[in-house]
Order: sequence, then C-alpha cells, then structure tokens
Amino acid sequence: MTVSPPPAHAIDAVLRRSIEEDLGDAGDLTTTAIFDAHHSSRGEIVARAEGTIAGLSIGTRVFDLLDGDVSVTRHVADGDTVASGTVLATLEGSTRAILTGERICLNLLGHLSGIATATRSVVDALGDAHTRVADTRKTTPGLRSLEKYAVRCGGGINHRFGLYDAVMIKDNHTAAAGSVAAAVDAVRRHVGHTVSVVVEVDRLDQIEAAVVGGADVILLDNLRGDELREAVVLVAGRARTEASGGVTPANVAAIAHSGVDVISLGWITHSAPRLDVALDL
Amino acid sequence: MTVSPPPAHAIDAVLRRSIEEDLGDAGDLTTTAIFDAHHSSRGEIVARAEGTIAGLSIGTRVFDLLDGDVSVTRHVADGDTVASGTVLATLEGSTRAILTGERICLNLLGHLSGIATATRSVVDALGDAHTRVADTRKTTPGLRSLEKYAVRCGGGINHRFGLYDAVMIKDNHTAAAGSVAAAVDAVRRHVGHTVSVVVEVDRLDQIEAAVVGGADVILLDNLRGDELREAVVLVAGRARTEASGGVTPANVAAIAHSGVDVISLGWITHSAPRLDVALDL
Amino acid sequence: MTVSPPPAHAIDAVLRRSIEEDLGDAGDLTTTAIFDAHHSSRGEIVARAEGTIAGLSIGTRVFDLLDGDVSVTRHVADGDTVASGTVLATLEGSTRAILTGERICLNLLGHLSGIATATRSVVDALGDAHTRVADTRKTTPGLRSLEKYAVRCGGGINHRFGLYDAVMIKDNHTAAAGSVAAAVDAVRRHVGHTVSVVVEVDRLDQIEAAVVGGADVILLDNLRGDELREAVVLVAGRARTEASGGVTPANVAAIAHSGVDVISLGWITHSAPRLDVALDL
Amino acid sequence: MTVSPPPAHAIDAVLRRSIEEDLGDAGDLTTTAIFDAHHSSRGEIVARAEGTIAGLSIGTRVFDLLDGDVSVTRHVADGDTVASGTVLATLEGSTRAILTGERICLNLLGHLSGIATATRSVVDALGDAHTRVADTRKTTPGLRSLEKYAVRCGGGINHRFGLYDAVMIKDNHTAAAGSVAAAVDAVRRHVGHTVSVVVEVDRLDQIEAAVVGGADVILLDNLRGDELREAVVLVAGRARTEASGGVTPANVAAIAHSGVDVISLGWITHSAPRLDVALDL
Amino acid sequence: MTVSPPPAHAIDAVLRRSIEEDLGDAGDLTTTAIFDAHHSSRGEIVARAEGTIAGLSIGTRVFDLLDGDVSVTRHVADGDTVASGTVLATLEGSTRAILTGERICLNLLGHLSGIATATRSVVDALGDAHTRVADTRKTTPGLRSLEKYAVRCGGGINHRFGLYDAVMIKDNHTAAAGSVAAAVDAVRRHVGHTVSVVVEVDRLDQIEAAVVGGADVILLDNLRGDELREAVVLVAGRARTEASGGVTPANVAAIAHSGVDVISLGWITHSAPRLDVALDL
Amino acid sequence: MTVSPPPAHAIDAVLRRSIEEDLGDAGDLTTTAIFDAHHSSRGEIVARAEGTIAGLSIGTRVFDLLDGDVSVTRHVADGDTVASGTVLATLEGSTRAILTGERICLNLLGHLSGIATATRSVVDALGDAHTRVADTRKTTPGLRSLEKYAVRCGGGINHRFGLYDAVMIKDNHTAAAGSVAAAVDAVRRHVGHTVSVVVEVDRLDQIEAAVVGGADVILLDNLRGDELREAVVLVAGRARTEASGGVTPANVAAIAHSGVDVISLGWITHSAPRLDVALDL
Repeated sequence: MTVSPPPAHAIDAVLRRSIEEDLGDAGDLTTTAIFDAHHSSRGEIVARAEGTIAGLSIGTRVFDLLDGDVSVTRHVADGDTVASGTVLATLEGSTRAILTGERICLNLLGHLSGIATATRSVVDALGDAHTRVADTRKTTPGLRSLEKYAVRCGGGINHRFGLYDAVMIKDNHTAAAGSVAAAVDAVRRHVGHTVSVVVEVDRLDQIEAAVVGGADVILLDNLRGDELREAVVLVAGRARTEASGGVTPANVAAIAHSGVDVISLGWITHSAPRLDVALDL
Repeated sequence: MTVSPPPAHAIDAVLRRSIEEDLGDAGDLTTTAIFDAHHSSRGEIVARAEGTIAGLSIGTRVFDLLDGDVSVTRHVADGDTVASGTVLATLEGSTRAILTGERICLNLLGHLSGIATATRSVVDALGDAHTRVADTRKTTPGLRSLEKYAVRCGGGINHRFGLYDAVMIKDNHTAAAGSVAAAVDAVRRHVGHTVSVVVEVDRLDQIEAAVVGGADVILLDNLRGDELREAVVLVAGRARTEASGGVTPANVAAIAHSGVDVISLGWITHSAPRLDVALDL
Repeated sequence: MTVSPPPAHAIDAVLRRSIEEDLGDAGDLTTTAIFDAHHSSRGEIVARAEGTIAGLSIGTRVFDLLDGDVSVTRHVADGDTVASGTVLATLEGSTRAILTGERICLNLLGHLSGIATATRSVVDALGDAHTRVADTRKTTPGLRSLEKYAVRCGGGINHRFGLYDAVMIKDNHTAAAGSVAAAVDAVRRHVGHTVSVVVEVDRLDQIEAAVVGGADVILLDNLRGDELREAVVLVAGRARTEASGGVTPANVAAIAHSGVDVISLGWITHSAPRLDVALDL
Repeated sequence: MTVSPPPAHAIDAVLRRSIEEDLGDAGDLTTTAIFDAHHSSRGEIVARAEGTIAGLSIGTRVFDLLDGDVSVTRHVADGDTVASGTVLATLEGSTRAILTGERICLNLLGHLSGIATATRSVVDALGDAHTRVADTRKTTPGLRSLEKYAVRCGGGINHRFGLYDAVMIKDNHTAAAGSVAAAVDAVRRHVGHTVSVVVEVDRLDQIEAAVVGGADVILLDNLRGDELREAVVLVAGRARTEASGGVTPANVAAIAHSGVDVISLGWITHSAPRLDVALDL
Repeated sequence: MTVSPPPAHAIDAVLRRSIEEDLGDAGDLTTTAIFDAHHSSRGEIVARAEGTIAGLSIGTRVFDLLDGDVSVTRHVADGDTVASGTVLATLEGSTRAILTGERICLNLLGHLSGIATATRSVVDALGDAHTRVADTRKTTPGLRSLEKYAVRCGGGINHRFGLYDAVMIKDNHTAAAGSVAAAVDAVRRHVGHTVSVVVEVDRLDQIEAAVVGGADVILLDNLRGDELREAVVLVAGRARTEASGGVTPANVAAIAHSGVDVISLGWITHSAPRLDVALDL
Repeated sequence: MTVSPPPAHAIDAVLRRSIEEDLGDAGDLTTTAIFDAHHSSRGEIVARAEGTIAGLSIGTRVFDLLDGDVSVTRHVADGDTVASGTVLATLEGSTRAILTGERICLNLLGHLSGIATATRSVVDALGDAHTRVADTRKTTPGLRSLEKYAVRCGGGINHRFGLYDAVMIKDNHTAAAGSVAAAVDAVRRHVGHTVSVVVEVDRLDQIEAAVVGGADVILLDNLRGDELREAVVLVAGRARTEASGGVTPANVAAIAHSGVDVISLGWITHSAPRLDVALDL
C-alpha cells in the first residue's frame, strides 16, 4: 500500500495560495509577452541530487489549476528514493502554463522531498530496529498537512497534528495540576474516550504515576541512554514509549537500542534542506 | 530607519491559518483541561543559539488573536543579532493563551530568524563591498512575504516578489523570441513603463543586445569569476548587474570582487536551518 | 472548572457566516428605517422552558460583531440547568444592534441549549453510574465544533471530532482487510502512535482479536444487554468499552448496568428539539 | 415543474465546509489505511423510515468534491415521499470516496429530509384548504438556504430569507414609531418599491391602519380562531394574511378554516427530527 | 433620519479586498522607505467639484484597517451636497497609514459620490413630483451594496438588490409561460408570500392580466409619454407603476408627469463620472 | 500577439463574488419558476454602440460557473473595435443559465468595454506619435486587475498595479526626506534592484537630482507644454518621461508633441461610461 496522501482540499488550499502569491493581479508578465496561448512545449522534472521524493503529484497539480492544458506523466512515486539525474516526470502542453507553474511546482516538490530525504536518512540510520521515527509540531506555518505527509513518504510516522487530536502533558501542566497523577486525571475528566494522552517525563520516578493514571504514551524527554533503557523496563508494555531531545542520525540507533517504540525529532521538518529539483525544457 | 514590516493583512493571514491549523475544531485539549480561563503566567522567549532575529512582532502577534489577554514586552528588535541565551521578549497574562500560542509563535520566529541568520552570514562574508545580497522566488509556499522580510532583516534585499512585479527573460524566452533583442522588444511592447526588465545571460556575447534593448538588470548566471569581471566592464554602468548560481558564504566575497551590484542565492530562503528559540515559563 | 469553550476562530466563523446569511447586502431593512443609530434599548434573554443552557456567550458574541455598542451581562453560565422564565442575560445598548442580532443569537442559543438539554436528560437518566454519555459524528454540517461543546455542557463527552483524529474500524473495513486482526494491524502500520483505534464489533467472538491487536476502544454495536455484560468481562479492562445502537433515555440506565465505560448516541445532536428562548425588550 | 434547488454556490459552500470539518488536515485515517486508491465498491443509500426526501442531489454531490470517482444513480426525486426501506440512490466507484463521504452525505440528507417530512406532515394535515404553510427565520446557522429548500420539498413556501428581502414591522418597531401607520410610513420612505412590507398585529384594531398604510402582508400573531376569522374579514383581500404562533399539526387545519392565506411555524426548521437514512455497502 | 448605511460586513469585505489589491505582499514600498512608523501628519479630504457626498465613513474606514493610528473628523454627512473646495474630513495620525490608505479612500469616496451626484441631478430634475428615482442591477461587480447606498444618498430608492429578493417577469419569461397571466401564476405558486412580483410590459394590453394576476409593480418599458399616462390610468392604483428606458435628466420630469410612481435608470450606477476628491497634507 | 489576459484566479474571484452578489441564497426566483432545468435557448450578445471590446471571455465565463451547460461562440476578440449592432458572441444551452448569468456577463462586458473604448479614443487622438497612454491607480475597488486589462485592450499600457510593484516619490515624500536626492537615496537603500523608481516633479529644477539619483521614470505633473518640452530635453534619455494632469482627448496630441514617452490619465478607468451591450434571445 502506498503512502496515503493529504486530503485534496488541503493540497488545493496550498496551491491556490501559491498561485495568488506568485502571479498576483498582473500574472506572469514575461511568459505572456513572449509566448502566445497556443504555444506548446515538453519538459522534464529532474532530480539534481539523490533523495527521497515527496510531493510529485502535489507539485504537478498546479498545472491543473492554471489556464492552459498540460499533461503530466510521472515516472516515480512519492516515497521512492532516486539517484541524481533521475527524470521524475514529463510535462507536455501549454508553454505558458509550464513556465508559469514551474517555480510553484519545484518549490513544493523540493521542500517536501527535502523533508522526506531527511526523514529517510534517520529511518535508515536506525537499521531494522522495531523503533519508529516520528515528527513533531515544529512545522512550517500553513504546510503541516503536507509536511507530515512528506515525513510518511520518508518512512516516518506522524505525531499529533495539532493541539486538538491528542493530549500532551508537559512540565507546566504537571506543575499547575500538582502532580502527574492529578494532571492525567484532570484531562481524563475533560476529554473524550478516543483521545490519546501523552505524558512527558524527565525523571524516572514520574513514570509509574503516568502509566497508572492512564497515559497512552510516555514521552521520555532528554533522558540518557541508560535511563531510557530503565524507563522501558518500568513502563513494561503498559504504554507506548517515545524518546525525544537531541536526536541526530548519528545517535538515533543508540537511542533505539533502549527499546523505545518511537523516536521523535523536529529537524526533519524545521531544518531539512531542500532537495535540488529542476525543470528542463 | 528600521526594516519595513510586511503589510498587516499578510501577517494576519498567516497567523489565522496557523491558528486553524494548530487548534482545529477542538482547541487545545490539554491546556483548557488543566488551566482555567483566569490563570495567569509569565514567560520568556529565549534564543538558544546565536543568530539574527526576524519575526519577533509577527510571532508574538498570535497572542492578540487568541482568547485571553497577554501583554508582550520585546527586548530586541528584528534585525538585531543576539547571543545564545538572550531573552527576546517577556510575556505576561493568560496561561491558556501563552501555552496555546507558544508553538505557532516559536515556529514563525525560529523559521524567519533562521532565514535572517543565513542572510546575515552571507552579508557578513561579503565584507564591506558595495555588492548587495538578494533572495530569489525559491521560498516556502504561502510565506513569501514574510520570508522576504526576514531576508531584509538579515541585511539582504529582495529580488522580485513574483512573476507579476518584474520581467525576467530566461533562456527559454530568448530561444522562443529568436534573440535577446527580440525578447526584450516583445516584453517592452507589452508591459508598462514602470516594469523593470531583468535579462538572464550565460554568455558574454549576449550582454550588449540586452543592454541596448533596455534591460534594467543583467543577470549573469553561472559565469566564472573572470567572466563576471569582464561582464561588469561590458555593461559599463548602463544596467545593474546581478550574479547568481552556486553562491555560498565561502565564495561570495570572491564573486563580489568582480564588481557586480547584486548577488542572489536561493538557499537563504529554501534551506536555512531554523534558529533555536524557546519559551521558558 | 467550567466546560472548555470551542476555539474563538470556530465561533467567529459561524457568527460571521450567520451575519452574512441574515443581513445580506441590504442589511436589516426594517430596523434601520425605524430606529436611528443612536437609539438605545434594554432587553432580556429569557428561557421559555426548563433546560440546560449552552451557547450564551457564543450567541451574545454576535452583538460584538455588529455595528453599534451593546453591553451584555450574563446571569447564568453554560452548563447550568434553569427553570422556565429564567432571565439568562441582559442587553443594553444600540437598539439597531439588539434587534438586528436577535434572531442569530436566539437561533444559536436555542439550538445549542436544545442539544445540552437532550444530553443532560440522558446523563441524568444514567443516575450515578460510572458510565459516560458520548456524542457521534451525526452533527449538523458546519456546526460540529459548537454542537460537541453543547454536548459537554450537558454533561456528556465527545467522541472523535472527525475522520482525522481517531481510527474507527467498522464492518466494511474488517471485511476488506480479511479479519479484525488484519484491519487493526494495517491501521497501526499507517497511523501515528498517538492515534486511538476504535474497533466496532457486533459479535462477541470478535473482541479478543481486537483487544490483542491493540484496540484502545471496543465499540459494541447493537448488542443485547446480556451480551454487553459478557463483552465487558471479555475485555477485562484491556480497552475502554463503548455501547451504541438504539439508545434512549428509557434504556440507557439498563445499558449502563452492563458496566460499559461509554454509551454513545446520535439523537442528542441530530434530533434534539430547540430550547425555547426569547428576547424581551 | 420540480422544486427549484438552491444556487450551486450555496450548496458547494456547505459541502466544502463539511469536508474540511470531517477530514481535517489528516484525512480519513481509517479508510486510507485499509483500502488502496483503486479499490471500488457499490453501495445503496436507503431510507430506514417513511418520509419526504430533500437533499439527495445535494448530499451525493459530496462525492464529486472528494478524490476518487463515484457515479451516483438517483432513484427518487427530492419532494417524493417514500416508504421505509426504499433505496434512494446507488453509488458505484472508489471505496475510499464512498466511505469518506458517507457521513457528510447522510448528515445533510437526513437533516433536510427531516425538515421536508415535518413540513409535509403539516401540509397534509391542512387537507386541501387554500392555505399554505410557510417557514420562518428560525433556521440553523449557515444552512438557511438549504433548509428553506427542504421546506419547499415538503410542500411549504418560504417566508423572507433574511432581514434584507422584506420588511417585518413588529411590536417594538410600532412602539418606537408611535403607531402602525407611522411605522409603515417610515419604512415606505426608506425602502424600494419592490420590497414587501409585513406588519405583525396582535389586536384586531391595528389591522385597518396597516392595510391602509400599504402593508402587503398582515401577520396575525397568536390570535384566537374567532379573531382570525374576523381579521380575514377586516383585511378583505387588500393584503395577504398570515397566522403564526402555537401552530401544530393538530391545530393547523382549524387555523386554516379561518381563511388565512398562510400559516407560518418555526418547528419545521428548528426542531424537526432527522429522517433515518443509511448507506449499505 | 439619515440614510441607512450598508451592513458593516459588506463594507469591510470591500475594504479588505482593496487593501490586498493595493498593498499586495510587499506593501507600500515608497512610504515605508521614507517615513518611519512614528511620523505623524495632518491632512484634509477636499471636494474639488460640487457634488453630493456618499462614502465618507466607508472610505475613511480604511484607516482603521491599516497599521498605525489615524483619527478622522468628518465635517459633512453622506447625502450632503457640497460646493467645490469644501473640506469633507480631517485626518490626523500616522503618516504611513494616511499615505498608504489615501488612494483606497479616495477611489471609494469619488466613485460613490459620483453616483450620488448623478442620482441627485435626476432627483432634482424631477422637481417636487411624487415620483421617485430608482436604480437597477446595472452596477459594478462586487460593489452593488455600496453603489445602491450611494443612490440612496443621492435621494433615490433601490430597485431589487439581485435575482433573489423580488421577481421580475420580462418578455422571455412571458413568452415561455405562454402569457403574462400564466407567468405570474407560475411564479406565485413557487415563491413565498413576501416576494414582490414586478411584471415588465411593453404594450398597454398586457397590463390588465398582470394586475389581475397579482403583480405588485407594473414596469412600463420604453413606452411613449401618452402611453405612460394611459397605463397609469389602466393600473388605477392596483399596483405600483414604474417607467424605464431612455431616461435622462432632460426628459425625467416629462416622464414623471405621466403619474408613474417610480422611474428607474441604469446610468446613475454604470456611467456616472467620479466626483473629484483629493487629500491635501 | 493578442493582449495578455488577467490570471484566471483574478477573473474567477470577481465572477464568484458577482454570482453571490446577484443570486444570494435564494437564487434566480423568476427564471427557476418559469423554466425547467432542461429548457434550452439560443441568444446573441450584441453591441448597441460602436466601441472597443474588452471582457468578452471574462464575461461569458460566468456561464461555466453556473448550473447548466451553455456553449459560447465568440465572434470578435478583445481589443477589436466594432460597429453598433455587431454580434459579439452566440450562446446556446440552458435557458436558466443564460438568463441567470445575463446581467453579470453584461455588467462586466459593458464596464470593461467602456474603459477600452475610452482608452482607444485617447490612443487614437494621439495619432502615430511614439508616446503611449497609461492608466493610474484610480480604479474601481476590487476590479483593478480587470480594468488594467481593459486599458491594454484599448491600446494603452499599465502604470504600476499597486503600492507594491514600483516606487513613486511624490511631493510629500520629497518634503519629508528633505530633497529629491535624499528621497531617491532612501528608497534605493530599502527596495530591491528590480524595483523601478518613479519621481514626480512639478518644477524643472527638480529633474536633474531625480535623474542623477537613479529615477527610472520622471513623472512631469501638471507642467505646461513648453515646460514639458524643456523637461524632455533635460532628461535627455536618461530616464523615461511621463506627463500627467489635466489630460483629455482634446489636448493629448499636443502634450505628446513635447516628446514625452508616456501620458497617464485617470478618467479612462474612473469615469468611462459603460459601452451599451445587450443579450437578445
């Protein structure tokens, strides 16, 4: 089964915003002055570096939303890792549409593939451990749905999408409630029975109360390797375990050896460099 | 004079989108369960690394748009370069609003400051040459207005904002029109007298036709250092000169020695890592 | 702690839509013709029947969004059950704003209070059992966030808000996957570790696979009372249990005696009659 | 001639809002995990109770707006009254689209058919009197255009759509203006010659001034049966007459015997229970 | 009583659109480069020609929506006719806001005052006849609500606002229905009792059927003066009469002498020249 | 090459707004009552006066956005000047769609063709001078993109589209900066190298500083004919020259004889009367 794409309305909202942003009220001054409406061209979208692709359908969808017909043939699928020089898709049709949509397409494809490539590098660094790699809410404003899709394309899984789809009890919440137990209890009284509760702990002695209180996930924040191993033993399968804090491709395998179920990290979404992609006419 | 901010409507559009994205229909499940509406807190936004700040007003504006009063005192200005550990702003007021808005604020501030910091690093590498650093259209979909502001905060200038506010004649346009001269002429007949025309050349023998045709900017794409110097001589002040292609902090000073007016590069917007910023309650 | 309100952006989206719907392009033809902009009045919002209030702040917020100042004093809180004749709020200010906003305010208040009242009747019918009452996704298009808030005001809890914040495996999914175990496994591989999985079963022999596969909630659909009791024994605390199907105030206490954690029903949102509320000037 | 549907833009606005509401940023987690994009199914939309249908085209239109092709064959028309068990439409196509759109389709269809069924029950209770049944502005926020269409499907007519398309002078307006005559006169000076004026009276001695002042409709609010008869005689065909207040299916025929042209009532829109409809795959 | 303004949401929708249109993503490049955020100025909005004012509050509202405080003191009211040179309003505050909002304010004020002035010229040409001047649906896309307000400021009344708030039966409708009587009957069966029906006739022998069928307004299209007089006699007060077609300030008084209630004409909205207004700093 | 149309998103935004404005929530009451959904008609859009056409594709695009199929055959192109009586396009298809969309189509076509016709009259009055005619920002709120297109259809060119795509230094800016030179310098430091700078001068002695400072366009405001000639000599080809102020078809040729490159005037957009166009069924 392929990676599930974001909902169509979320994709189109980003694309429409991008079109307004790049074309403005005057449109593509250069292309409409040089090419008439009937001029057609053929172009190829090419990866200029090795990487994992995400956003090929999303990016090329821009040509459906612009004036002028462009047919798109995709040669790879999102989630594929490709070599530098790989032709990702072929475009044929209105030259105006191809040139006008080029930058929007490439910006999305390069950005999302950058995230997928970064995620894939972490997943591969893990080897075949049972541990999974997850993202965070440290995403680019307005692009979370698409960026979390890119993480899935890179072999990762998604942490909560927002403040609305899972509870996460952090130190401030615990302090205000008086204890982990009190915080979990307060939350359980308010939220529905389908809401997962994540409890962040930074000391081993907080774990038992969290598990007993009904946490679904114990988030082990910035613990040392030996502490992580002990934490996994303490949880004993009664909740899922997640490690976060200071994760890099270099140390991710070591962290996974602790036996945690999930390792989450922010840089795959907030600091991944763009994958170099280009359009050759 | 401080850096001019983006228009208020552009900022608020991003913030409202971010709020819908992060709060959804159910809101902040955790915070509303733990803190009542009258609970108040004090917090500090802190830089966890050295960098150039952009987006402090933009990011903290989120607290104006959420339920609950939060007063914000800013201790630095956008464009300031700060040491790791610097307190950027102090927040006082509704705990709910502070915790609910935290991630939106930090995501924007960290992203924009990352761009400002990258830009500043290139500007500083130039030394005191007369050459200026410019961005491109390789920005994140939906954030161009804010990212171009971050470039200005880092000491750079903005290239065109979109396809609509300047003409850029590239190789495809030249090929279709038959020659640089023909392309410039076609454009001049279509666009108004206030539109600047940038002509991209990759050979020195294209320059004269572009200048004579009325180009305002000659974009020298991927030329070698000696070619750049010769190009500047050929242009002879009749148009502004811009170099692009393969620019890094390491080679930017060398490129500038050619005497070009502007050096443009994409990675300051598409691949700058986030500046690490945090909220301490 | 009071019931957490929906996010402000969700409330204002409904109100702005309502204002456009009721005022159109011409505005309130009657009121602007009769009263000048400076005429002021005093009015009371009154319950004309006994019921549980929801939406008093939401409904009266309309007066903030219309031209003309109106001050609102609320005498009861959302979640309060009031007798017929109770004055819920007092309005003072612009007559134009009061009369123009009257219907929007009352439509929202009456609709949401109708849902809260229906929910409260089910919750009260349960007596003090540990079982909780939950809603469904059978809500009015565009009003889910507010209707689920009304359920909370009536003492209920919320089931998932949409297709996006929890998994629910129904018979079609099970059939396609081949078995409950296969369906749960497929889902677990795709979704993140913070997503709860609800498995709907209509036979007792499906329960063990669901629990072992990692279901967080076992939804017992249309089982008889004795089956429900047996199901609770079979689950044995390894997942939360939910009963649904044919629930009425008359049978809800009997269902609860089976020991299920949650009883969910659709009519509190899709068929609750409006609570009669009026504005007296 | 069939009942005129609401404008397409009004329908699509509701559907797009519903899709965002139900799919959010993550989409249908369950269905996309279990079914691949090419899996197809056949399903039937069935009425589980007797009732009058409204919204079959509107509800099934959701499948046009989701990813994946679904063909819809409708077997009944809006306005038809059907027996329990009637197959209303057959769906064939993408399983993902069918399951993802199911709840949005059924929520709309059930809600609108509930209103049509309630309206039809009142219309049928009237027998073949010349009197017509009308709705009010007591509708669900954001759904007025569709709910008023459902009233037409049930055999009713629409009262004004908002504050903007007809004048209604109530007691507060009369009191402020000084008299019915003064109020009608003030309105006639302000509004255009195509605007109808409804004057609400609760005493027989107010009628003559209203008619002479140019009222198009005399709304007889909460009058007794004998008063209604006398009112109709007093109006003497110089304006349309409308009765409102305390109308139920039980008394509607009696009210109609007074000879009023229209009887209006709120519960057909604000309190009609949903018609039970389901999707069988 | 002053002229009733358009609803606030209609005004703000136009203003927000105008701000996005004029400021774009980069904002006011000139003003933000020259003036810092704290620079303040004083300016006067002045009429450079004699005319009737409409849109002074609407136009100056733009300063509330831009960054920077500007206080506005209005010296005349909408509907006032002023001499050339009259100071309409004084502005004090942020220079940036005043200069950035200047053109949006003046474009609206000049456009709406142009319409008011044109309307006033027709109304004045009528003398003190009982006949009133009405607009049409020949308005500028997106500005109908504001343009119809300008007509009211000029002493006119509004025809229907759209296709939705009154019926107008024209020749095509009559031809399709078979006769005026059949068309009126078809409409009366479909629309509610609060909807006015206008019937357009171009021959005297169509009048009786229209009146008897229940038309509220008889629109006499392009009839000669003697025909108009005869038409008024034939209608005999049983409906309102409206003349249209070829109306100019020169012939409007003559048309009014026929005794029609209303004269409608399109050029006051579609071809009125702008009133010259300026901002002096 | 034909005139480049506005971007599709800008056209559709205007059309969707127009549809909401004219159809509202109730739709076309008249047409849906008289014609059933399958009734079809044939109609012609006809010019009732001589003029230059703009907006034929834009206006008829409304039929694509309404329910019901209409095929449109266009017989002339935007930019063509046609005689009174010319059939511009033929429509065939749904009678409902044709009659419902008629007014929106004609309002746009008549408005834009009015602007094109006015522009053409000025361009023609110039004779074959090298001087070009430009518009201003004195446009109708929300329609700038389309109105500037109409100017191009009439043979004119566009001045800047907004405050964001070129700098214009006026007297207030100069005064605040201290001198023309200081103002140009301040702007050049802030804006990018692709932004054109227009400097407005009203005295000949301001020209040299503007040119030397780097102005791309010298806007000569309200200078006499002899001053204009002298200004052109002073500029000496170092910048483009533009004349504005008091331009009419009567004096435009005389102004052009001064040798200025561009003459700009506001009345072609703010005061052009509508071209009379009609739909004949």
